[in-house]
Amino acid sequence: MSTLRRVALDVLKPHDPPLLEFTERISAVERVDAVSASLIELDQEVQNVKLTIEGEDLRYEAVEAAIGELGGTVHSVDQAAYGEYVVEEQPTPQDG
Amino acid sequence: MSTLRRVALDVLKPHDPPLLEFTERISAVERVDAVSASLIELDQEVQNVKLTIEGEDLRYEAVEAAIGELGGTVHSVDQAAYGEYVVEEQPTPQDG
Amino acid sequence: MSTLRRVALDVLKPHDPPLLEFTERISAVERVDAVSASLIELDQEVQNVKLTIEGEDLRYEAVEAAIGELGGTVHSVDQAAYGEYVVEEQPTPQDG
Amino acid sequence: MSTLRRVALDVLKPHDPPLLEFTERISAVERVDAVSASLIELDQEVQNVKLTIEGEDLRYEAVEAAIGELGGTVHSVDQAAYGEYVVEEQPTPQDG
Amino acid sequence: MSTLRRVALDVLKPHDPPLLEFTERISAVERVDAVSASLIELDQEVQNVKLTIEGEDLRYEAVEAAIGELGGTVHSVDQAAYGEYVVEEQPTPQDG
Amino acid sequence: MSTLRRVALDVLKPHDPPLLEFTERISAVERVDAVSASLIELDQEVQNVKLTIEGEDLRYEAVEAAIGELGGTVHSVDQAAYGEYVVEEQPTPQDG
Amino acid sequence: MSTLRRVALDVLKPHDPPLLEFTERISAVERVDAVSASLIELDQEVQNVKLTIEGEDLRYEAVEAAIGELGGTVHSVDQAAYGEYVVEEQPTPQDG
Repeated sequence: MSTLRRVALDVLKPHDPPLLEFTERISAVERVDAVSASLIELDQEVQNVKLTIEGEDLRYEAVEAAIGELGGTVHSVDQAAYGEYVVEEQPTPQDG
Repeated sequence: MSTLRRVALDVLKPHDPPLLEFTERISAVERVDAVSASLIELDQEVQNVKLTIEGEDLRYEAVEAAIGELGGTVHSVDQAAYGEYVVEEQPTPQDG
Repeated sequence: MSTLRRVALDVLKPHDPPLLEFTERISAVERVDAVSASLIELDQEVQNVKLTIEGEDLRYEAVEAAIGELGGTVHSVDQAAYGEYVVEEQPTPQDG
Repeated sequence: MSTLRRVALDVLKPHDPPLLEFTERISAVERVDAVSASLIELDQEVQNVKLTIEGEDLRYEAVEAAIGELGGTVHSVDQAAYGEYVVEEQPTPQDG
Repeated sequence: MSTLRRVALDVLKPHDPPLLEFTERISAVERVDAVSASLIELDQEVQNVKLTIEGEDLRYEAVEAAIGELGGTVHSVDQAAYGEYVVEEQPTPQDG
Repeated sequence: MSTLRRVALDVLKPHDPPLLEFTERISAVERVDAVSASLIELDQEVQNVKLTIEGEDLRYEAVEAAIGELGGTVHSVDQAAYGEYVVEEQPTPQDG
Repeated sequence: MSTLRRVALDVLKPHDPPLLEFTERISAVERVDAVSASLIELDQEVQNVKLTIEGEDLRYEAVEAAIGELGGTVHSVDQAAYGEYVVEEQPTPQDG
């Protein structure tokens, strides 16, 4: 079977726990090697965050469960990379 | 004969299976070494996804069949690279 | 004599054979080491494709003949590189 | 447990201490290996500064405390990277 | 004395010989190691081409003579690099 | 204690001494390893210059004193990097 | 003392000597290791050229004298780098 190596998630989270604690908790999920979180937008009730998560054989269900336990929801899965390595996308003329 | 090393596809897929499972299934196709999938656009019924697939001697028919079994369709083949290595395109003044 | 190492072509082709088969056939031309094809535009009757072809001593006539046998025509030769290596163009203020 | 490796902060600070002394004091916080500070905007009373801080196992509380002792406040945590290495975010089509 | 290592030329040429043969002939000039030619613009009578030529001790007169023998003219010399190596220009605030 | 490794300064200077002599004098300040100066703007009385200064343990006071002796003033400190190495800032979505 | 390693000059020159001969003559100045010249603009009487000159311990007076002997004038010194190596400027938010 094929392994998940990178996933980019668009996440909505409450202000509490704050971004640092939130990200630390995701990075503690089994098989996660590294996580970057960037603040996209914030309003009074939620923060919109982009998470980029890498690992050698990520378990997405565990990542999603951890996000849910922290009060967050995955708004969309923006990118996923499976296989023996991560293919970087190349821009093509059709990207327009 | 010449081998297919990379192909970039513009794919329409239903919401189910979700992007992760969809991509994992493509990555399990024979000869596929790695796949990245990016969400381009989504509406109520379909997701528009860009797939970049690499392998040493890809069988496109098998990839296309797997996409079809998952309820997706290839809207267009945006890029294909054949040969001993992948030539990266260079921008030229005629690209406009 | 000097050798052709890379050529970028703006090609018009019918929908059949499709882009993958078309590109595979070009990659099978003698002395071609690698080909990338990108879809630029398509309408009901033709596809406009950018081909980037590399080899150690390319025979352009053979490439052009193969394109013609597949029903395609070279709309323009957008870039050509000859010599002991491929010089990458540098942007200059006059490009403007 | 997972370690904090990089954090990017949007900070408001008074004019005194000036940017150099302010940054030096942050760089003296335990576990901080390196800090860059850039001036974003300044008005009569405050400076808006972007701080990028790296270390092997950063203690954010200590960084935040040092900023507070210098009269500054963290306006937002713009980016955080945890884990075995720093994942650089890749742009995705959904970034808009 | 100092040696010419790279020159970028803005050239007007007739349609015949075509770009490939034209470029091959330039690449056959003594001391030329590599040439890239890009099509900038074409109208009914002429093609406007950017030539980038490299060599260890280029003889510009020989290059210019070859262009003239092929019916072309050098519209402008856009860039020249002399010396022990090629200095790449860095953008400066005054370029703007 | 932590060391200053790079500082970027927005400087106003008179026309005399000219940019080259001015920059040479800054580069002669103790602990300065390298300086680049770029002209941003000039009017009849002053030149606006961006100075980027690197060293292993820069003494900012000495740099500022040298600028003052040459008739210049530091308009703003635009960037400062302290620590064991120079952290390059990464763009974040909040920069926008 | 500190050494000049790179200088970028905005130069006005007559059409004669042409750009190639002009650049070659500058490259023959003592201590100049390499020169690139780019055409910025030309009108009936003068050419506006950007010169980038590198060397291990450049003598600017000799460069300027050579430009003057060739009928040119230095309109502005756009960049100068002194020291043990060339610091490349980093963009900062204050660059605007």
